[in-house]
Amino acid sequence: MTRQELFDQILQKRSFLCVGLDSDVNKIPGHLRREEDPILVFNKRVIDATVDTAVAYKPNIAFYESLGPQGWNTLAKTLEYIPKEHFTIADAKRGDIGNTSKMYAKAFFEQMDFDAITIAPYMGEDSVTPFLSFADKWAILLALTSNKGAMDFQNLQIGESELFEQVLIKSREWGSADQLMYVVGATRGEMFAQIRKHAPDHFLLVPGVGAQGGDLGTVCKHGMNSQCGLLVNSSRGIIYAGEGEQFDESVKKAALDLQADMDRMLDQYLR
Amino acid sequence: MTRQELFDQILQKRSFLCVGLDSDVNKIPGHLRREEDPILVFNKRVIDATVDTAVAYKPNIAFYESLGPQGWNTLAKTLEYIPKEHFTIADAKRGDIGNTSKMYAKAFFEQMDFDAITIAPYMGEDSVTPFLSFADKWAILLALTSNKGAMDFQNLQIGESELFEQVLIKSREWGSADQLMYVVGATRGEMFAQIRKHAPDHFLLVPGVGAQGGDLGTVCKHGMNSQCGLLVNSSRGIIYAGEGEQFDESVKKAALDLQADMDRMLDQYLR
Repeated sequence: MTRQELFDQILQKRSFLCVGLDSDVNKIPGHLRREEDPILVFNKRVIDATVDTAVAYKPNIAFYESLGPQGWNTLAKTLEYIPKEHFTIADAKRGDIGNTSKMYAKAFFEQMDFDAITIAPYMGEDSVTPFLSFADKWAILLALTSNKGAMDFQNLQIGESELFEQVLIKSREWGSADQLMYVVGATRGEMFAQIRKHAPDHFLLVPGVGAQGGDLGTVCKHGMNSQCGLLVNSSRGIIYAGEGEQFDESVKKAALDLQADMDRMLDQYLR
Repeated sequence: MTRQELFDQILQKRSFLCVGLDSDVNKIPGHLRREEDPILVFNKRVIDATVDTAVAYKPNIAFYESLGPQGWNTLAKTLEYIPKEHFTIADAKRGDIGNTSKMYAKAFFEQMDFDAITIAPYMGEDSVTPFLSFADKWAILLALTSNKGAMDFQNLQIGESELFEQVLIKSREWGSADQLMYVVGATRGEMFAQIRKHAPDHFLLVPGVGAQGGDLGTVCKHGMNSQCGLLVNSSRGIIYAGEGEQFDESVKKAALDLQADMDRMLDQYLR
């Protein structure tokens, strides 16, 4: 998917919502556990309930990997079920030496047909560039994450800048804003101004709104650009919003509430 | 596996060789491609040929992931085939927020029964600690990798130390030398003295000998400690040493040659 196609979808749906499919068999409604593939049935109902309010879906690969080979079948079938208009992100945090990153790219862009994959930047340029040689596919580099441990390394001071800024500065030379996005956690909304100095045009994938406590208004105020430039992810806050047989009605409402907020943000901050 | 058990095996075999199973269907001997599961047959023959000279095996997860769900079956069957005395490492470079890292730990330590997994440190403490709550299991943190891109971030100067040293210094507080190892590439052997200042007791997993050009003597001179403290990995240099139907004879010889070098290194540097 191209950047323009993603922006068109955002304008059409008045939403920049990414639904995180962190689907855990121990947390889904109990009656679904009688199904042959409970996670697949759960995912399909979540997708049905959010298909008009979400522009992107982000399966968290760990949750499928923990189920063994069957989990990869569930992941593949989930991906097939997502309509083609949606942007799909493998939240996989991969990254290795060149010949190995190439294999990961094959796994997620060829064996499966994801639009994007999240990448850890620690191993540098040749661990990232293999993901950039696929047309209209995206590498989403970790910059500033939403967890407590983010501060251990990402905020270390290196000369005039912090480590996460070095990731932004160096990676700009590896690919364009049509190939690269960055993960920036919502939990520190004021940092978005600093991010935008280095990456004015890039889309940012923003976890941490909702369960992790990030504030949507602050993120949009400092982070939105002329093409929106934000994909705000909610996982637990949406997919586990409901209980019982009609759980998907609450899922639909949680996504609609967030979409309504996003509609207002687009009115206020889209320049 | 405990640190003592690993050291006992090293003394018994006079070897600290880890064989990297980066098995690629396009590089294995052609006649094996007629098999139903060519990679599994290839891996079994490599394991048979190296079982007496290797103390550890390290499947590179990307190579199995790129084959889809079938690849995970191949990986599981490969792991089952490795004798229990060997140390097994999932070279996966995982790492995510706490609840997600817990799922990756389940995947590799419970769903499969690896002894260790490689971890990217960028997301900090809570991305690593979920791997440390399993008895006799190991997290192997990337410190200084063997690729060109390593220099992009790992050698950035932070006050008095470099980023990879910060990884060593901070992670010492998260777990002990009985739970944590570090990846240190052989391509810069002189750096091992600097590493040992921060991690005198830890085992180091050392890629980059052979195809990537690292020198075993320099690594051992600066890196060996009283329990050896080194697992030196060779992937392509061993598993693709031979061609044709009797390829495994060359595999066996390549491993034996390296083991003979290691025997001499243990004589010279084990203190």
